Amino acid sequence: MMGEAAAQESKRSEKWNARRAEIVDTSAGVFARNGYHATGINELCEVNGFGKGAFYYYIGSKEELLAAIHDRVMDEVLAGAARVVAAGGTASERLAALGDELLDVIHHYPDHVWVFLHEFPALTGERAEQFRGRRREYERRVEDIFRAGIAAGEFRDVDPRLATFAWLGTHNYTYLWLRANGRLSPHEVAESFADIFIHGLTNRVPEGVADRNQGAE
Amino acid sequence: MMGEAAAQESKRSEKWNARRAEIVDTSAGVFARNGYHATGINELCEVNGFGKGAFYYYIGSKEELLAAIHDRVMDEVLAGAARVVAAGGTASERLAALGDELLDVIHHYPDHVWVFLHEFPALTGERAEQFRGRRREYERRVEDIFRAGIAAGEFRDVDPRLATFAWLGTHNYTYLWLRANGRLSPHEVAESFADIFIHGLTNRVPEGVADRNQGAE
Repeated sequence: MMGEAAAQESKRSEKWNARRAEIVDTSAGVFARNGYHATGINELCEVNGFGKGAFYYYIGSKEELLAAIHDRVMDEVLAGAARVVAAGGTASERLAALGDELLDVIHHYPDHVWVFLHEFPALTGERAEQFRGRRREYERRVEDIFRAGIAAGEFRDVDPRLATFAWLGTHNYTYLWLRANGRLSPHEVAESFADIFIHGLTNRVPEGVADRNQGAE
Repeated sequence: MMGEAAAQESKRSEKWNARRAEIVDTSAGVFARNGYHATGINELCEVNGFGKGAFYYYIGSKEELLAAIHDRVMDEVLAGAARVVAAGGTASERLAALGDELLDVIHHYPDHVWVFLHEFPALTGERAEQFRGRRREYERRVEDIFRAGIAAGEFRDVDPRLATFAWLGTHNYTYLWLRANGRLSPHEVAESFADIFIHGLTNRVPEGVADRNQGAE
């Protein structure tokens, strides 16, 4: 059973966490619009509607805020990857599911992703180290799928590292247009990307074979 | 025959252009490292080794400098696309050649491309309009290849717009790692990307057919 003091602490901490998350989300929009380096603490205080004391109470420093924005994206992205690993399936199925998870995060956090992709070089020391580690962890998750597919004979013998970067580029780059493009949902876009990666563009199979196979598909 | 005054004018103009290009290139590095908004005219003067008078003589304004960096990339990118159109070939061949041209520019101008991809929202008015127009022109060049390939039955019936963005994402995203990755040349990376896009990842053809086809390839 939780002691009264601990319960109070947890309650305060919950409130503190919620308020902190709110600040992180609001500030991501400011960084996305005006750039990290060009945004001052005063401006952050103004948009969040508090004074410098509150800024230090909830955040600590501008770089800590930048790290929190990165973490918010990476938490979601890595959780999605963990779900894909847990669900299993063929390499093609897992690649499609991973793309679906990633576009969902990009669609949900356009400002955070903008900041994430543009301002990561501003992180220093331990924060930069931690971010690089988590980014590498995600890249490994993607690459594992390519390697597994190749090992199983499901995928052709492509360079798994280059395939990983091609796949990441295709999906990450949607931060520039996914928001504005109302024609298709993130899920539909992810499906289309998975189709291109998995099956490619060309009608490779000789005409006769393609005709015969069409009925079976 | 050129009159003496015109020849002198052209000579001065050539020198002016060369010096301007030098300033654009040097400044691209500063914007890439520190961000466009956070960089002041004083800093630009310092790294270029001149005073404010020279800055206005060669450039005019900070936004004009940003536009010039964009133009430097777009000039090269569109020239590459024009070469691909002129060379002709199948859709697969043109797509591979276009990727080769694009990675060559990204590899050659890493700072410009960094600024280009991150700071384009800072362009305003006519400059923003012109940049959007040129970017759209390039996107159309890419999309044309997908449409032609689909129309000729060479490509499967994919969404040409989404294929264009997948392709652009794959290639543009190399600005984050192409410089550091010494393992492969830009040309080798482009070849590998073209292979994934054109042939896809899966061993689609039924086992027996694949075996029979292998000798013919």
